[in-house]
Amino acid sequence: MVNIVDRDTQMCMSLAARPSNHGVRFHNWLYAELGLNYIYKSFAPSDITAAIAGMRGLGIRGAGVSMPFKQDVIGLIDELDPSAARINSVNTIVNTNGHLKGYNTDYLAVASLLKTHQVDPGLKVAIRGSGGMANAVVAALADYGLRGTVVARNHNTGAALAGRYEWDYSTEVPTDAELLVNVTPLGMAGADEHVQAFSDEEISRATIVFDCVAYPVQTPLIQAAERLGKPVITGGEVIALQAAEQFVLYTGIRPTEAQVMAAEEFSQQD
Amino acid sequence: MVNIVDRDTQMCMSLAARPSNHGVRFHNWLYAELGLNYIYKSFAPSDITAAIAGMRGLGIRGAGVSMPFKQDVIGLIDELDPSAARINSVNTIVNTNGHLKGYNTDYLAVASLLKTHQVDPGLKVAIRGSGGMANAVVAALADYGLRGTVVARNHNTGAALAGRYEWDYSTEVPTDAELLVNVTPLGMAGADEHVQAFSDEEISRATIVFDCVAYPVQTPLIQAAERLGKPVITGGEVIALQAAEQFVLYTGIRPTEAQVMAAEEFSQQD
Repeated sequence: MVNIVDRDTQMCMSLAARPSNHGVRFHNWLYAELGLNYIYKSFAPSDITAAIAGMRGLGIRGAGVSMPFKQDVIGLIDELDPSAARINSVNTIVNTNGHLKGYNTDYLAVASLLKTHQVDPGLKVAIRGSGGMANAVVAALADYGLRGTVVARNHNTGAALAGRYEWDYSTEVPTDAELLVNVTPLGMAGADEHVQAFSDEEISRATIVFDCVAYPVQTPLIQAAERLGKPVITGGEVIALQAAEQFVLYTGIRPTEAQVMAAEEFSQQD
Repeated sequence: MVNIVDRDTQMCMSLAARPSNHGVRFHNWLYAELGLNYIYKSFAPSDITAAIAGMRGLGIRGAGVSMPFKQDVIGLIDELDPSAARINSVNTIVNTNGHLKGYNTDYLAVASLLKTHQVDPGLKVAIRGSGGMANAVVAALADYGLRGTVVARNHNTGAALAGRYEWDYSTEVPTDAELLVNVTPLGMAGADEHVQAFSDEEISRATIVFDCVAYPVQTPLIQAAERLGKPVITGGEVIALQAAEQFVLYTGIRPTEAQVMAAEEFSQQD
């Protein structure tokens, strides 16, 4: 099959040390579905400064930014959206005639999902994890009005994350936690795929369960929550919605929810 | 249709102020035909220095270079192949693990066509034109052993080009010219498409006619030469062969002559 590319094709890309296939499948599927003359390509840049220079020099319209570049790009672009400034982390860059603006669609996606799932902002949160994604999630939870406890084995990163938002820090899940959030790799395909991030007992005491793991969507945690009759927010929703927000920023076009779900299903097939 | 792009896809590109569709069609057609995981995209860079930095930073495998960047890129890359050093002009850059080497496949294509058409190196040449492509063509002709006259209305560029290769310069076609070469836009689609670059009388006196105009391939000059029974070398051969040489440099794979012709036919359809 000959790829449909001509002189007018706009390009978007991802920048990651170890690119996944999610972005290339998600975005290229929607470009085809919506008949847009765009193409999406992943790169594993050797030099992020040169990569961003190339984004300007070549007129590449958009870039998804993954580990380990989410902080590094901040000094290389022209403007930060509040979503990125809030957490000092950029996962999306939009190039408008050479002006590069950074966003964080992980933050935007979590904020949006709390609304659409009508999460009660009075719930007590226990969030497991203290890395970059945990920072985006805690910021979105806190800005929604939620408060709670960061649960992490690493005291330094855990206490620092909790302190930034005036939350508590603990190595154990508090017994009064009502919204359980997993932002660790527990349950992810690979070494920890059979590990359930919160126990059945903890889930039984909770009101709602939110897992940020997207591969697979049906983690042990999500399966247990569904078995125990608790509503869930899945990592599949987060990754699809954050990619959809990128898509809107790049193209100016908002796909329907059905289109986003179909694109996400296509992306998960790989 | 969803474009086939994944995390392992290699990218090549063209850099031109006003990109044509030839490269994107030619290369993408051959990638599909040969089952190679490559994609080709054209860019009109705002800043050639940033574009080359981006080629390094993103690990883009190859770049076709067109006007007005063929000299500008020389100071931005690491090594010149003799084909580019000979004429101080780069139309192809190959990126091997961050080492950028410049080639000139126009020179290589003309040199190759003189051999395959078994042109007698003793023929007297008259070449019309004195621009960048004329420089590549005269260098290839001279290195093949040919000598002759640069015919150009612009005395400065014509005399300078002739002087570089110890050829003659004239505003008129010498009556003893045996190999007629057109490197002007005469006969090209657009303003001069009905102009025949050499007269019937000049063609009748000649042995072989070489037109570098590729759009259309059947220029008034080529049509007149065929009508007068003279062998021809066409601009279609030049553009296809120079693109094929780029393809070999980028992928390490040499397509068959039939594949090159089919790719060129596909490219000419646009």
